[in-house]
Amino acid sequence: MVIILEKNATEGQIEDVIRHLESYGFQVHKSTGVERTIIGAIGVQPNFDTRKISILDGVSEVYRITTPYKLASRSFHEENTVIKIKDVEIGGNKVVLIAGPCSIENEDQIFRMAKVVKDAGGRILRGGAFKPRTSPYSFQGLGEEGLKLIRAAADENDMLVISEVMQIDHIELMEPFVDIYQVGARNMQNFSLIKELGKTTKPVMLKRGIAATIEEWLMSAEYILSSGNRDVFLCERGIRTFEQYTRNTFDLSAIPVVHKKSHLPIIGDPSHATGLRDQVPPMARAAVAAGADGLMIEIHDDPENALSDGPQALLPSSFTKLVDELRLIARAIGREL
Amino acid sequence: MVIILEKNATEGQIEDVIRHLESYGFQVHKSTGVERTIIGAIGVQPNFDTRKISILDGVSEVYRITTPYKLASRSFHEENTVIKIKDVEIGGNKVVLIAGPCSIENEDQIFRMAKVVKDAGGRILRGGAFKPRTSPYSFQGLGEEGLKLIRAAADENDMLVISEVMQIDHIELMEPFVDIYQVGARNMQNFSLIKELGKTTKPVMLKRGIAATIEEWLMSAEYILSSGNRDVFLCERGIRTFEQYTRNTFDLSAIPVVHKKSHLPIIGDPSHATGLRDQVPPMARAAVAAGADGLMIEIHDDPENALSDGPQALLPSSFTKLVDELRLIARAIGREL
Amino acid sequence: MVIILEKNATEGQIEDVIRHLESYGFQVHKSTGVERTIIGAIGVQPNFDTRKISILDGVSEVYRITTPYKLASRSFHEENTVIKIKDVEIGGNKVVLIAGPCSIENEDQIFRMAKVVKDAGGRILRGGAFKPRTSPYSFQGLGEEGLKLIRAAADENDMLVISEVMQIDHIELMEPFVDIYQVGARNMQNFSLIKELGKTTKPVMLKRGIAATIEEWLMSAEYILSSGNRDVFLCERGIRTFEQYTRNTFDLSAIPVVHKKSHLPIIGDPSHATGLRDQVPPMARAAVAAGADGLMIEIHDDPENALSDGPQALLPSSFTKLVDELRLIARAIGREL
Amino acid sequence: MVIILEKNATEGQIEDVIRHLESYGFQVHKSTGVERTIIGAIGVQPNFDTRKISILDGVSEVYRITTPYKLASRSFHEENTVIKIKDVEIGGNKVVLIAGPCSIENEDQIFRMAKVVKDAGGRILRGGAFKPRTSPYSFQGLGEEGLKLIRAAADENDMLVISEVMQIDHIELMEPFVDIYQVGARNMQNFSLIKELGKTTKPVMLKRGIAATIEEWLMSAEYILSSGNRDVFLCERGIRTFEQYTRNTFDLSAIPVVHKKSHLPIIGDPSHATGLRDQVPPMARAAVAAGADGLMIEIHDDPENALSDGPQALLPSSFTKLVDELRLIARAIGREL
Repeated sequence: MVIILEKNATEGQIEDVIRHLESYGFQVHKSTGVERTIIGAIGVQPNFDTRKISILDGVSEVYRITTPYKLASRSFHEENTVIKIKDVEIGGNKVVLIAGPCSIENEDQIFRMAKVVKDAGGRILRGGAFKPRTSPYSFQGLGEEGLKLIRAAADENDMLVISEVMQIDHIELMEPFVDIYQVGARNMQNFSLIKELGKTTKPVMLKRGIAATIEEWLMSAEYILSSGNRDVFLCERGIRTFEQYTRNTFDLSAIPVVHKKSHLPIIGDPSHATGLRDQVPPMARAAVAAGADGLMIEIHDDPENALSDGPQALLPSSFTKLVDELRLIARAIGREL
Repeated sequence: MVIILEKNATEGQIEDVIRHLESYGFQVHKSTGVERTIIGAIGVQPNFDTRKISILDGVSEVYRITTPYKLASRSFHEENTVIKIKDVEIGGNKVVLIAGPCSIENEDQIFRMAKVVKDAGGRILRGGAFKPRTSPYSFQGLGEEGLKLIRAAADENDMLVISEVMQIDHIELMEPFVDIYQVGARNMQNFSLIKELGKTTKPVMLKRGIAATIEEWLMSAEYILSSGNRDVFLCERGIRTFEQYTRNTFDLSAIPVVHKKSHLPIIGDPSHATGLRDQVPPMARAAVAAGADGLMIEIHDDPENALSDGPQALLPSSFTKLVDELRLIARAIGREL
Repeated sequence: MVIILEKNATEGQIEDVIRHLESYGFQVHKSTGVERTIIGAIGVQPNFDTRKISILDGVSEVYRITTPYKLASRSFHEENTVIKIKDVEIGGNKVVLIAGPCSIENEDQIFRMAKVVKDAGGRILRGGAFKPRTSPYSFQGLGEEGLKLIRAAADENDMLVISEVMQIDHIELMEPFVDIYQVGARNMQNFSLIKELGKTTKPVMLKRGIAATIEEWLMSAEYILSSGNRDVFLCERGIRTFEQYTRNTFDLSAIPVVHKKSHLPIIGDPSHATGLRDQVPPMARAAVAAGADGLMIEIHDDPENALSDGPQALLPSSFTKLVDELRLIARAIGREL
Repeated sequence: MVIILEKNATEGQIEDVIRHLESYGFQVHKSTGVERTIIGAIGVQPNFDTRKISILDGVSEVYRITTPYKLASRSFHEENTVIKIKDVEIGGNKVVLIAGPCSIENEDQIFRMAKVVKDAGGRILRGGAFKPRTSPYSFQGLGEEGLKLIRAAADENDMLVISEVMQIDHIELMEPFVDIYQVGARNMQNFSLIKELGKTTKPVMLKRGIAATIEEWLMSAEYILSSGNRDVFLCERGIRTFEQYTRNTFDLSAIPVVHKKSHLPIIGDPSHATGLRDQVPPMARAAVAAGADGLMIEIHDDPENALSDGPQALLPSSFTKLVDELRLIARAIGREL
């Protein structure tokens, strides 16, 4: 922590600041300049509330000099994390393709969709069993029955399953059916839930909260990592801004930033980011071009009758065409898909 | 729902839109102008995903013409909701004062703080037993022990207790100890949790999510109301914006807007909104002047050693002085405190 | 400036950083901790682009330790600036009332409105002669003719005139007619314009840009101050956020923050902040309660036929009633109006 | 315009609304449903302030049903606008490359940079002669001398020149030297300036304001188009959001949205969007993948000593490597570069 004193801070105030820092366990370095005094405080409390110092008399500014996360940071773990599940790698040179319907609706649908994804080269099948909807009057998912269906559909196609976990008691219920737990944007800071996921042995995909800074997102990853589970990857899905012509603003600059700050893989979800099918292909292409380690895309072969989010689902034919373009883009930057 | 067709929409496209609307159960009114056709669709699905129509060919714009919430809306319930708990009313002419420490730390502390609040005229004691912290390394609350302490402290002073509920299995655990369940900003869209709270018989204070629109906030209230619990009040606690000199932007304009759109009471939380003690008094005064039905304020008599959020806690003396000013402001606009 | 090196920065990298700092004219203090090296760089370049250091190898974080503005800062000028124009003071204990129509429409209108403002106790008359409208098809103002009318209306009532200046060649044109130049939100960073205003001898009211941080706002004030004009006051008028039920988010927390960081007076404009007449009174009251040094309010006695912004104009009767409430609130916090 | 009446609106209120609409010149269609009355108002005032209706008694919601811009909209002009300047086309199948230094610093520098751009296949040279800086203490540009230098450097390499125009009296001054006028983000709503540019005969590149919605951006384009100049193209350069790890959020979803709503070309500026050199290549690639009609990239061969924005300038070698990748990505989506 670095503390900048006010220009006119008195000796008494400076001593009081130092006394406080020492009482909080920091090692203190005072450096007196011509105009101002600067204090460096070295310590081991990554989560120290710096406001405790900023409210002291004579203090002008306080800067935390370490990131509040540790296990998630690139400086703790220089090499990229590569998560291996059976023969699928997330975070390696190959861009991973996750696709499937928003909700698991019935057996036929999930089996049809699994085949579409598989044929296009996807190895991970997505599908929601518990639907967190803004409206209490909307379809809320098939529950456990849905999980059984998606597992069967994935198995038939030699694929992995990812599905969203909504509450703590779902973790155990979902365990036999999924390969990856998905944490939705609204639960990114549901600390009770993510701490429990940190105790499981399956990988977790952590979506960015709609208004979460990258730092908060990495702090939530830290919750999972520090509870023991090191297989975490991130998913950018759009942030909330003032713009109204788009549903969310797909923050693709988060991709190079996360790659710099952290060793964790990061993928993009253009379906939720844009909310409208015709914007999915350009944004999917942009995500791969920006360096995403994977994509998660929603598809449906009868979007008009989809039980949720039909308007953002790609038709199988558009999906297949898109994957061809993505393959070329991946190659242009030295990766595969 | 009102659908505006493209200027050059063909007859076939218009018919297709009408066919879709009818299949979704809407009653359709077509109105052909010189330049464009407009279709009115009357129906009973408040949560209809309007994107289903906006992606049809020939459609230019689609407007939902009803709010997606119903029970929470002023047009459903014209009179202000006044929540009565023993002899305390929330939403009446009297501005309600809720105060106490951020966390319940120990017996002495919560009893001392209860007395401060009571002496200043407050009737509801706040204090957290389960602390949702951004960092996994921070103090996480006293749990059930804390709840017992705050209940005892409130009882001794003839006060009510409000405390935050973090997860579903806390609801039952907290039931014997609290008079009001608080839902924190991060859980505003934890639909699993709020649906369960809708089944309880105790009032719920619903904080606004840091990036929640007022509409989403009222939709979350709708979840609780539609599950059976009609005693819901709202708490504005600051939203996230681009500004960095403040922790959050305290959105006081939400107060008159909520009063117009909804019958539910709304209070303000200047402590979390600003995050720094010296900004709490001006923002508390502003909230009352803007028409808030109450305030929630954090206090601590030894903020330097507070286990959480010390920097935003008011000292008892400042709190008492502030309440005197608030009383005058309430009177200036025809209310009491 | 404080530079935090990476944990694994090499000696060579550290030396290179020091060499760069010295070449930019900084005095360097190196402080080697157990885990990291921290470098303090003391210098006289308030506007140094810190990114020049952050891109060097081995650098983890860079913090500017001084504000980029100087003349506008409280540490440069401890006492509140009080701007005196004839017998009116802006920034003193008395809350200043500025009011009038959005646009000057004709002689009758501006004379009627001047009388309303005067009778309510206002001393400064506002009215636009050049209207910066979002649409090229809207009313663009009466120009010089309007300025003559507002000057005459103010003179008859012993009032001052404030009007918006839109472009450099308006400065001279407006000089004979106005007492205060208003810089609109869209011109807050029109540096060509504000630099010229810095060379005039009349006070300048600088509105906050719709997406300007408080720091950028004070930087724009610095442009004017550093060009020689010390009579600058600020006007908060709402910022852009994700919320859609309100036109802007009236950032009242800016008031205590500006008072802390700067010595310049700050007033509030609830008319533009909310955009709708029925939200103006609660937000006007909140601004005074938050400590604003003044208010700017739009009024119109025939808002339906107003040539601009009629929907946000208060009727004279509501305005008079509001001023009575404001007077009580000012008194509650030890001020007058 | 579509007006939704309140459920309990009286006949008198409805008639009053209709009377108002007719007095504003609208043709009115009333449609009475079971629960509510809806009024369609057809008229020719694209810029009508809908708040005039929303404040009338009995009105629940008002929706504008036409975009407020006309000449800029795709429905007015179905074909893509392709701007031709000599043998360069902006908005055609070929992705246009604009590059050069942030500021023109001296003769050598601009000639060296022109050659780098030309060799990589760029046809338009950028360089600022008037620098709008946040700080009054920073380098403010070479002015007319700079314009002469960039013109000469471009001529020697058979290139076009783009440079930023900051104020009205620069338009004439710049005319002999530039092929394209650039309007910076801070001037997007400097209506005085853009109206004048609408009277020139040279193309205008309009950058998006840092907090401008896409609709406002198109409205500013409308100002130029409606003043007579039809050669306008847009430049996305990042918007302001809550995220702090990036300088701006590069809103790439604006690209498909603009292509849908408008016929005007749109390019991306990853240099200003990210502000840091190492994020420029991924974001440049993403912009092309998202369908941008061009890119504007800042380069410098001695960024440490650049007079402005050195940290975001690419070195010539990185620039050349990037252009090779961009060429492959353009091809992957059926375009050239």
